[in-house]
Amino acid sequence: MADLLVTGTLALDDVRTPFGEVTDALGGSATFFAYAASFFTDVKLVAVVGQDFPKEHLELLAGRGVDLAGVQVTDGRTFRWTGEYGYDLNEARTLDTRLGVLADFKPELPPHYRRCPFVFLANLDPVIQLDVLRSMERPRLVALDTMNFWIKGKPEALRAVLHEVDALLINDTEARMLAAEPSLVRAARAILAWGPRVVVVKRGEYGALMVTPDRFFFVPAYPLESVFDPTGAGDTFAGGFMGVLAGEGGTSEAALRRALVYGSVIASFTVEDFSLNRLKRLTRPDIEERCRAFREMMQVEL
Amino acid sequence: MADLLVTGTLALDDVRTPFGEVTDALGGSATFFAYAASFFTDVKLVAVVGQDFPKEHLELLAGRGVDLAGVQVTDGRTFRWTGEYGYDLNEARTLDTRLGVLADFKPELPPHYRRCPFVFLANLDPVIQLDVLRSMERPRLVALDTMNFWIKGKPEALRAVLHEVDALLINDTEARMLAAEPSLVRAARAILAWGPRVVVVKRGEYGALMVTPDRFFFVPAYPLESVFDPTGAGDTFAGGFMGVLAGEGGTSEAALRRALVYGSVIASFTVEDFSLNRLKRLTRPDIEERCRAFREMMQVEL
Repeated sequence: MADLLVTGTLALDDVRTPFGEVTDALGGSATFFAYAASFFTDVKLVAVVGQDFPKEHLELLAGRGVDLAGVQVTDGRTFRWTGEYGYDLNEARTLDTRLGVLADFKPELPPHYRRCPFVFLANLDPVIQLDVLRSMERPRLVALDTMNFWIKGKPEALRAVLHEVDALLINDTEARMLAAEPSLVRAARAILAWGPRVVVVKRGEYGALMVTPDRFFFVPAYPLESVFDPTGAGDTFAGGFMGVLAGEGGTSEAALRRALVYGSVIASFTVEDFSLNRLKRLTRPDIEERCRAFREMMQVEL
Repeated sequence: MADLLVTGTLALDDVRTPFGEVTDALGGSATFFAYAASFFTDVKLVAVVGQDFPKEHLELLAGRGVDLAGVQVTDGRTFRWTGEYGYDLNEARTLDTRLGVLADFKPELPPHYRRCPFVFLANLDPVIQLDVLRSMERPRLVALDTMNFWIKGKPEALRAVLHEVDALLINDTEARMLAAEPSLVRAARAILAWGPRVVVVKRGEYGALMVTPDRFFFVPAYPLESVFDPTGAGDTFAGGFMGVLAGEGGTSEAALRRALVYGSVIASFTVEDFSLNRLKRLTRPDIEERCRAFREMMQVEL
């Protein structure tokens, strides 16, 4: 089992969906990622929060064995996101973003973090992503997530960090935007030419597609009767994916495929309730049972 | 190998996509279906055309071994469809529909058609679909396709025919519309309660989902660099699916799954060119090769 470092956001979210709403809920890309990955491996977190961040949230992560030595608690307010979803739960509408302490985030890696072999740069300013990556000592697998805000706002910094990562996890609209190419296959191939050897395109309720230079792999999304809140689905997908790879210590095609199934499984639990509520009740046997269901849903004899 | 009967439209299409356009092109749900199915089994066609329908189109189908004894050539003009697609190729915009001889279509089944064990009721007035079905003698598997026009326009007739079919093939938007239910899983379950024991939800570039009372199965769409014209994708998907089932003479879960993969394979070729142009160049070895690629894209060891 290998350690997994993640940098990203810890946040307080206000979220409204057609099925309910929450205020001041625990959120953030690194939160969701770390919690999901903690089922499979030891996670080290690099992030910043303000003095207003409830201690119980940090205790929740610590209780999952997440190493918080890289979490700075600074003067100011925690990053806040306010968003809503319509009946088409595939896309969030951001109503408000307050960076707070994130605006001046200078990540500092404790010395024992620097040799982490698996690294995930969750959605964050690409300048900070690169900064964290350059502090690491020869990681084995580095993956990155990003979003439209950075694709439009910091394209050069994003290309610079992409050049140094092994895998990009990105949603389909953003993959097309990043490559300026309406064909998803061509978009993925263009991105492969910029550095990553793996592109994982997240497609919400349609699952995900992994593109490598000579192969494709599809993983479906688990067919749920009810989705309550998609917030964190992509981050927990990434957390399951990277958690399984780090847990196995593997980066083979077979390991990548297996890891994607686990990512899809964890994401399917995440959306069954608001914030991390469903994950908090989740057990490893629940995960394994749904994995078996995935295998059954994908099986065909030709 | 068992025979497969299809009723649906033979049409002349004007189609524009971002990548080109065709006028007076061979189209129609039954045309695409029959051509695709002809790779796998013997097809019997029930349809109507006007005197203007070019003989070469009928010869094309006859050349594939399609039995045309049930095709009426009547006074009047052939059904015409004019449509276009934007860069999002998932949805056609209908610009014009001229029913022509289809307006008074009274299907007549030649006696040797009546014992066909596999039946496909392609997109058509549900009153006609039911009429054809009632002329058959105890078919083993009946499947049906429909569209928003009939869901809104003839809901009772559609429910009546649905009550008597084994499988519904329908696209995702229309499945939700038919069941008046935004959750696809719930929509499929609602439809299962009305008669069919299999619901296949077609999701365009995202593949298809098969729902049976106790199981799900996913088949991806083949990841293409270029899609030229999606017209006929759904009909050839159905043609491959039903063609393989009839060819095997099977209706088991394993056969249904295998048939869905072939459906997705055939549809992936269809969209690579306008009208039936790509299918006309297609060979059985091409199909088998892409099937092997599908198996590879879906394989995972958990």
